[in-house]
This record gives sequence, structure tokens and C-alpha cells, in this order.
Amino acid sequence: MLRQASRTLSVSTGGAGLVEITDEVRGWADGQGMTTGLLTLFCRHTSASLLIQENAAPEVRGDIERFFARIAPEDPSAYAHDDVGPDDMPAHLRTALTQVQLSIPLVGGRLALGTWQGIYLFEHRRRPHRRDVVMHLLGE
Amino acid sequence: MLRQASRTLSVSTGGAGLVEITDEVRGWADGQGMTTGLLTLFCRHTSASLLIQENAAPEVRGDIERFFARIAPEDPSAYAHDDVGPDDMPAHLRTALTQVQLSIPLVGGRLALGTWQGIYLFEHRRRPHRRDVVMHLLGE
Amino acid sequence: MLRQASRTLSVSTGGAGLVEITDEVRGWADGQGMTTGLLTLFCRHTSASLLIQENAAPEVRGDIERFFARIAPEDPSAYAHDDVGPDDMPAHLRTALTQVQLSIPLVGGRLALGTWQGIYLFEHRRRPHRRDVVMHLLGE
Repeated sequence: MLRQASRTLSVSTGGAGLVEITDEVRGWADGQGMTTGLLTLFCRHTSASLLIQENAAPEVRGDIERFFARIAPEDPSAYAHDDVGPDDMPAHLRTALTQVQLSIPLVGGRLALGTWQGIYLFEHRRRPHRRDVVMHLLGE
Repeated sequence: MLRQASRTLSVSTGGAGLVEITDEVRGWADGQGMTTGLLTLFCRHTSASLLIQENAAPEVRGDIERFFARIAPEDPSAYAHDDVGPDDMPAHLRTALTQVQLSIPLVGGRLALGTWQGIYLFEHRRRPHRRDVVMHLLGE
Repeated sequence: MLRQASRTLSVSTGGAGLVEITDEVRGWADGQGMTTGLLTLFCRHTSASLLIQENAAPEVRGDIERFFARIAPEDPSAYAHDDVGPDDMPAHLRTALTQVQLSIPLVGGRLALGTWQGIYLFEHRRRPHRRDVVMHLLGE
């Protein structure tokens, strides 16, 4: 019988960069006792986003952070919006270039993540923040 | 009892930039009388996309438009595909860098959007267009 | 009565670029005999992604490939992570800039794709690979 479950995950970030949340997400999803379904993650912010990325080499996370800092640089002369700090508009652009939502099928009782895929909260502001990620699971 | 609803939203755009559709989407979703579920929006075009972004400072929208115009510039010498106008290939690239689909959980009778999140249709062509966004809600 | 179906599609790629999978995806979805629902595609890799793009002019695919090669170039001096080859880190960045997941509503017995929209597996590595795309359909 198809049913739904949902919960909000609160993630502490320590400045711009990737924070892995795979274990928390998988732990919650596994606990719902479903075999087949669809898990959706939704980040309720405009300066943080979600990313599925390599979970093996830690340098990948640094390279990703530096790439986005380069492609959407802090540069007050480039943006009209600057009242919340020089890292705010770049944070919105980095969010636009990535995603605030991810859905992952649940098949055979397991999330369909590949071997090298980890789920990350991508913080785009310089300072630590607390970010809410809504988890929603529909399945049976 | 889980059930589904769907409808197509037609959005008029006035040239490249962001058009907010939060009220239309929320109004339709609220009208389905569900408490928990998953709303999916799907943009049926390759020169327009969907974005969840800051709904407060209007300059953010202008900065986003200018950023994408810079990152995927109109430059006939850069692209092989140019028969539909110089703004067509950049429009496809801008679509590729953002999303044509967004899913938002419905929790406690409300879409899980954060306080500062608005839903936008992101038009990438210079001229006005009419864009179809399919809304699909699954819940109870 | 709402129900689910899932299957993994195996896609052979011949180096960096777009491989159309619309027919395989549509064929499988049509075969489930549902009228309304939500199809989700999930790419189980960190060096390949999914993209909905123009299915008419073939030059668009070449332009997209060249754009991403330019925006996330192979440049050993730019990345700390380089043990899997010079095209590996750019592949992760290209994946981050696009999506590993896509959901498409099924309405009136048909996927809600627009006339010009095709579904593509976007390979980011230089060499041929075999890529797994999980298809999940929930509907009735």
C-alpha cells in the first residue's frame, strides 16, 4: 500500500563548501520500511543547494568549491544587489547553477545511488549557517 | 487515499528574464485539498527553464539575467547552430545550466518553499513568448 | 489504483557528448499502461548526467559539448584532483552544472515532453563508458 513520510533535516554548515548528508538521508529513508519508492530532498534556501557528487577523493570537494568561486566571483562591481554582503549575490548564482531539489528512486529497499555518489548540502555563504532540507518519501 | 491532479499553466514572458509564478502555482496546489504530497513542475521548452530564487530584492533578478547573458553570450562565432537567431543557442545553454523540472514537497498542507524562495519561469529568448508549465501533484 | 514500476536502462557512450535516450525511455514508460503519473530518471554516476534538450538541429548537441568543455576545461593546473585523468575533474564539474535526476509528468497517457524536447545522457569522459540510468514510474 503506497504511503508517504516526511521530515526536515537540519544541517549545520561551516562556511562555503560541501557538507555530506548521505548517512542522515539514508538512515531516515531506510527507517521508513519501504521497498520501492521515490525520495525527494528539498533545500529551503536561496544561498545553499543540493549536489550529488564523488564521495571518494576529498580533493574533489575543494575543486568544486574553487570552481564555483571562480565562475560566480565576489565582485561588487558586477552586481546591483549587494546589501546582504559581497558573498550573497554569488551565493544566489551558485544556487541557480546547481539545484535546490533532488529526487532519488528507492529500488529493492535501497536508494539507487551509484557506488561513488554521495549527497551533499552545498553551502554558498562564507559564514556558518543552519540549513533546512525537507525529506519526502512516497512508496510502499 | 493517494491521488493525482495535473494542469498546464500558460505563462506569458516579455523577453529574457525571470517571471514569478509562485502565486499561480501555489493557488492551484492549494485548491487540490491535499495535506501531504509532491508537486512537480515541468517546463515544456528548450529556451526557457524553471528557477527557485530570492523573492525579496528585485535587483537579484536583474543580476541573474546579466550573469547568464555573460556566461552564455550571444556570439555567432562561438556556435555552429545559428539559424533561429543569435539568442537561440545561448538560450539552450542557459536552459542546460538551470532546470526544466522542479519538485516541491507539500507538507502540513503547504508547499515546503522557504521564506525567501519564489518560483520563476526563466525566459531565455529576447522576444515575448508563451510558455507551458505542466503542474502535477501526487498526494492525499 | 496507484502503482510503481522501475527498471535500469544501460546506455553505451562513445566519449564526451550527448546520447539521445528518448525512445528507450518513452518505450518503457508507455509499456507500463499508465495514464497519469510521474516518471523519474536517475543517473548513477558522477561523470555523466541527464539533460533535456533540442532534438531537432544536431549542431545544438555539438555546441553544448563545446560550451561545457570551455566552461569546465581540462587544465591540470586548475584542479587538485587529477589521479583519474585530466578529464575527470571537468567531468564532475559538468555533472554539477547539469543534473543527475529528471522527473517528467505523464499526462493523458503521454510523457509531457514538449515538441522539441529530447532526453539525453550527457557523457563527460573522453572514453566510451556504460552508464546506468534508473527509471521509476509512479502512477495509475
